[in-house]
Amino acid sequence: MTRITRRRSRRDEEESETGRRDVRKQRTRRALLDAALELMQGEQSFNSISLREVARNAGVVPTAFYRHFRDMDELGLTLVEEALRALRQMMREARSAPLPASSLIARSVQTYIGYVQANQDYFQFLAKERFGGSRALRLAIRQGTALFISELATDLARFPGANNLSTEELQMISSLIVNIMIAITEQLLDLPADSESEVLWLQDQAAQQMRLVFLGSMQWKPKSVRDKQKAIAQG
Amino acid sequence: MTRITRRRSRRDEEESETGRRDVRKQRTRRALLDAALELMQGEQSFNSISLREVARNAGVVPTAFYRHFRDMDELGLTLVEEALRALRQMMREARSAPLPASSLIARSVQTYIGYVQANQDYFQFLAKERFGGSRALRLAIRQGTALFISELATDLARFPGANNLSTEELQMISSLIVNIMIAITEQLLDLPADSESEVLWLQDQAAQQMRLVFLGSMQWKPKSVRDKQKAIAQG
Repeated sequence: MTRITRRRSRRDEEESETGRRDVRKQRTRRALLDAALELMQGEQSFNSISLREVARNAGVVPTAFYRHFRDMDELGLTLVEEALRALRQMMREARSAPLPASSLIARSVQTYIGYVQANQDYFQFLAKERFGGSRALRLAIRQGTALFISELATDLARFPGANNLSTEELQMISSLIVNIMIAITEQLLDLPADSESEVLWLQDQAAQQMRLVFLGSMQWKPKSVRDKQKAIAQG
Repeated sequence: MTRITRRRSRRDEEESETGRRDVRKQRTRRALLDAALELMQGEQSFNSISLREVARNAGVVPTAFYRHFRDMDELGLTLVEEALRALRQMMREARSAPLPASSLIARSVQTYIGYVQANQDYFQFLAKERFGGSRALRLAIRQGTALFISELATDLARFPGANNLSTEELQMISSLIVNIMIAITEQLLDLPADSESEVLWLQDQAAQQMRLVFLGSMQWKPKSVRDKQKAIAQG
């Protein structure tokens, strides 16, 4: 399962003195990010954890925090960015495989679920902060989602049968698909560990819903066509 | 716009002494519920407000709280219950009107949006607590949503064209529709006051998405039919 790359590698550690200092810096930065994620796994939300707690959990003094992030918001935004960037990249790859629609759907759902499972801590964080107390994080998550919808719409435009659909209609369909993904994410996060059969059920349910959206899209009469039909009917 | 009934009426106040005491009791109970909702409008979540704050905001001493609720969880669960009960009732009524599918969809979306707007405080609370820190509230909201999906599936079963669909397939379609509703709720809550054109846009987008789901459902080959076709193909 693809885990978000948490930049830290053996090779980096074999570099020169400056390199070594960079590596140490990267490592502390990573430790701070991981510490924050870990603190938010239970009942805590981003707004309820303090910079001091994050530093302590990462094993550094609070002042060291500022060598890596301006404030807690910057750390939170980095987490949002990390989660969404890797996800976008991966989903684009899953969609670009030259497969028939039904296999593409099944494959994308599977890829996505694997990614969420491998990065539960990030998704728990995103789910909480979508409506959490920090306005900056809320906005970043919204924008990330909007970008995701746009990219999906661009890819959908290339499907045969999509020629008649306007950009707005493609966006409408994409946002429906992203809704399905958000809904299964939330259900996945609710499951206790080792719920394999429930995960398979969720996967099947999401794939069915996407297939239904796909069928609906094939039947969709674009506004341009409906307007023309109306004009003809009215003579 | 339908506002959740916050039991308190002029007539009640003209009752006997016992009645008057009941009314006072109801009024304090209401004040506590409203105080909690009000406190959660900003950055605060259910877990971050205290019984003490709720009592103070309602204008009563903390000990008075316990005459109405066993603890904060019971108050929270009451809020969830109030929000979902009225909503379920209303949506069932909206769906039972003898109208063609497309008008039913438009009408249901409009009814729903009006309800969310009239009860923003409740929905803000539900959106936050769906992933908030209180396990009891999270569970209650999940169960409420599941009930909602079931009832919708029951209503959908009566539609012409749904005869072939299994209970699981009807549930799959209902949960897709409820996803759409949850997504517009979240978008509505994000809008600043006086965003009339954005609200109309959301309304139109949700109605289009539901229409697409409806078209997809009409094209859906139930598993029973697909299995039969497979059997025939295999001789």
